[in-house]
Amino acid sequence: MSAKTVRVGRDLLADQRAAAERFRAAMTERGTLVVRLLSSPGAGKTSLLEATIKHFAGQRRIGVLVGDVQTQRDAARLRPLCKTVQITTGGACHLELPLVEAALAKLKLRDPEFLFIEDVGNLVCPASFDLGEHWRVVLLSTTEGDDKPGKYPKAFRTADVLVIAKVDLLGVVPFSLKRALADARRINRQQEVFRVSALSGAGVADWCSALDNRRQQLRL
Amino acid sequence: MSAKTVRVGRDLLADQRAAAERFRAAMTERGTLVVRLLSSPGAGKTSLLEATIKHFAGQRRIGVLVGDVQTQRDAARLRPLCKTVQITTGGACHLELPLVEAALAKLKLRDPEFLFIEDVGNLVCPASFDLGEHWRVVLLSTTEGDDKPGKYPKAFRTADVLVIAKVDLLGVVPFSLKRALADARRINRQQEVFRVSALSGAGVADWCSALDNRRQQLRL
Repeated sequence: MSAKTVRVGRDLLADQRAAAERFRAAMTERGTLVVRLLSSPGAGKTSLLEATIKHFAGQRRIGVLVGDVQTQRDAARLRPLCKTVQITTGGACHLELPLVEAALAKLKLRDPEFLFIEDVGNLVCPASFDLGEHWRVVLLSTTEGDDKPGKYPKAFRTADVLVIAKVDLLGVVPFSLKRALADARRINRQQEVFRVSALSGAGVADWCSALDNRRQQLRL
Repeated sequence: MSAKTVRVGRDLLADQRAAAERFRAAMTERGTLVVRLLSSPGAGKTSLLEATIKHFAGQRRIGVLVGDVQTQRDAARLRPLCKTVQITTGGACHLELPLVEAALAKLKLRDPEFLFIEDVGNLVCPASFDLGEHWRVVLLSTTEGDDKPGKYPKAFRTADVLVIAKVDLLGVVPFSLKRALADARRINRQQEVFRVSALSGAGVADWCSALDNRRQQLRL
């Protein structure tokens, strides 16, 4: 056993943090609000983006980067609506900043007002990575159950915003909004909360209005 | 830079595979069928276990090991029904065999007929680990959407069994059973498929009967 200590991990993490800060500052400078969506598979990230883009109806410059382990399916859904680049990780369970930067270069959209990053569907691993977003949004769909914040605390602790998705199914599935919100509040008291159904359209206008407000604050 | 090559990763993986094979053989010897459940958070792993244990109504010796990032919630649900040990990973996104072996030692159940291992809710990372299970079961709930097999191929490729969960919501949520099954078939043609609703009880008897059949084959 050698007595030499190799401090690789520590320097890499510091490098990653610094790179994320540089990316965030550069996007602020361009007037682009970077919004990142985290959730379990199938919680409704892509559906929320579809509803968001349709709500803005061409009145905002929007770009989307979608991450998946495999397939171009999410990009295929979004491309008819806005400029979209699919990132396939080929097995990896989360996005990292170099993948985002490479995809952004392919987006060919000058200074968008909103850049959405849809991470791989995974409520655990992506929460440990900073992709230079201004707003981290975690989705919890009513069909997943109201006990998830406490069970997957990092995603809920680190997110600025909580979207309760699929609220059209409240009353159909066993989900107590009150219990879910109390659980989330125990982990993060600052989090803004939206209740949305991408299918019915409920809550979409409030969510989009909050996106506009958050973007207004970029240069303050 | 030293010219010496350190082959750590390769040996560790071989060690892990050998340990999983030893565990599987030991459980076969005891007549215990090890069934492992993989899925997204909230797909219904714990609910399927509740329905399964209730169906067997004390007629089988059943032990359960439940994995979560945090909390004892799943064990709290299952303990009134059968011997259960909660494994909390404290941040890690999947279970590994040493955690399973340590939990099994705490289960205090002599030669169960079924040992269920419920992995952390995550459709990506757990699929890369062999925990010495005889039957790997992936759950896809109807509320997650029918496009998931292709997007998370490793979980579907490596599972012996596919359970379509929450089939009571077919017709309520946008999910085509036909599309989901065609997608799963493209990845894995051998997979046995069950359609289950833990809430309504639909399909639970067939699933439990298959568990019995699979266990009968242990010593063949």
